[in-house]
Amino acid sequence: MTVKQLGLEELVAACAESGVPGVGLWREPVQAYGVEAAAKLVRDAGLAVTTLCRGGFLTAIDPHARVKAIDDNRAAIEEAATLGTDTLVLVSGGLPEGSKDLHGARERIAEALTELGPYAAERGVRLAIEPLHPMFASDRCVVSTLAQALDLAERFPAEQVGVCVDTYHVWWDDRAPAQIARAGAGGRLHAFQLADWTTPLPEGVLNGRGQLGDGAIDLRAWRGLVEAAGYTGPIEVELFNDELWARNGREVLAETAERFTTHAT
Amino acid sequence: MTVKQLGLEELVAACAESGVPGVGLWREPVQAYGVEAAAKLVRDAGLAVTTLCRGGFLTAIDPHARVKAIDDNRAAIEEAATLGTDTLVLVSGGLPEGSKDLHGARERIAEALTELGPYAAERGVRLAIEPLHPMFASDRCVVSTLAQALDLAERFPAEQVGVCVDTYHVWWDDRAPAQIARAGAGGRLHAFQLADWTTPLPEGVLNGRGQLGDGAIDLRAWRGLVEAAGYTGPIEVELFNDELWARNGREVLAETAERFTTHAT
Repeated sequence: MTVKQLGLEELVAACAESGVPGVGLWREPVQAYGVEAAAKLVRDAGLAVTTLCRGGFLTAIDPHARVKAIDDNRAAIEEAATLGTDTLVLVSGGLPEGSKDLHGARERIAEALTELGPYAAERGVRLAIEPLHPMFASDRCVVSTLAQALDLAERFPAEQVGVCVDTYHVWWDDRAPAQIARAGAGGRLHAFQLADWTTPLPEGVLNGRGQLGDGAIDLRAWRGLVEAAGYTGPIEVELFNDELWARNGREVLAETAERFTTHAT
Repeated sequence: MTVKQLGLEELVAACAESGVPGVGLWREPVQAYGVEAAAKLVRDAGLAVTTLCRGGFLTAIDPHARVKAIDDNRAAIEEAATLGTDTLVLVSGGLPEGSKDLHGARERIAEALTELGPYAAERGVRLAIEPLHPMFASDRCVVSTLAQALDLAERFPAEQVGVCVDTYHVWWDDRAPAQIARAGAGGRLHAFQLADWTTPLPEGVLNGRGQLGDGAIDLRAWRGLVEAAGYTGPIEVELFNDELWARNGREVLAETAERFTTHAT
């Protein structure tokens, strides 16, 4: 998503060129390219698919909408398995129209995971609940902290459900370091993503994630925390940023790789 | 602030007209009018000054900036005492330029409160640390949760330092209800404010607070929580909202009073 201006073939070529060993993919471009074809493209280039983004949106109340969401998540799990990644990231969903019940919405996520967790594990895929920054609580993700994400995940076996830690979403939270340790101890640190926090936030707040090093987050310290908790998996850089998307994608990828070295290693 | 388009005299007249028994004032218009004169104006109208907003901004590292901030907060305490309110709301301040150290910034707030707490209590004023939504953590307030605010406040006597609960800032936090109980048990629930959460957030995210009833927050439930924790003080409505500010102030005040009745009583 950091370089969404690149098509899948360009992306794979640019990763190989920049020495980037793995790539997190999003469902839409993969579906447009064809899941099997995308899997072959990435595999032939020697790239790992680190995660698939994203499943989730499991907070609907309406039964038909719930069935549709479950079916869509089953499809996402199958796509992840085909792509050869062991991790599907979940963005849980916001409050249904007119609802003010955060607790109820979180319970409906748990209910859906009762179906999706075993389905995923049977296919070698782990679900990673990603807490999103509290500014997304109403319209995108009612799971706002790592503690909440783990409270949900721990109802299920670790090989079914864990968490995704993204610095952008958790950096402000003084409880997050202890929650990372909790996740690590339980074998539930399934994904780790970097983005920096910059202000002012743009309208809608979705596409203002900062390039590594431009913002307020001590990225190296967070990397240290997940590694101290036993994380040895890939580190993704996920920047939703209109300015980066307007630039040449290969340049942005090379810049991001360089920023990663400077600010996170 | 909900009707900042009204001058102080208009505001006082409009409150009396709408049956609003008290008003939270901001320092800038009070200073412009004259603190003594403002105190007399409000007193003569039979209105209570519920709180003064705002002191704080105590996170600077530079010694000169720190001295200046302390002096400014002393002045704010004196203004509060002159206005006859017992509560000065504190917005703690963000990260200093270039700093990524949230913990250090929070410690510098505690350091400043060591001076300001006794100074306030001697003048009959309580300081109320207001946690701001985590989306303000870098540039406005490193205190993002009620738990953090209470961790700071509890280092001081309750008659010196407590907290301000604003639904807009805490509504997403599943720990907030227990923290309200903690604050109440310790005699530290010094102020309670209502605003609703609406999306999309505007650029800069400061002036998008929703009119009561327009958003995702169960205002009545939060009022119930603070009252169950023993709060009997005034309830303020604090809306930063460009659209409300562009309208006729008296109309907005009357609408807000009506929304309060419908959604919070």
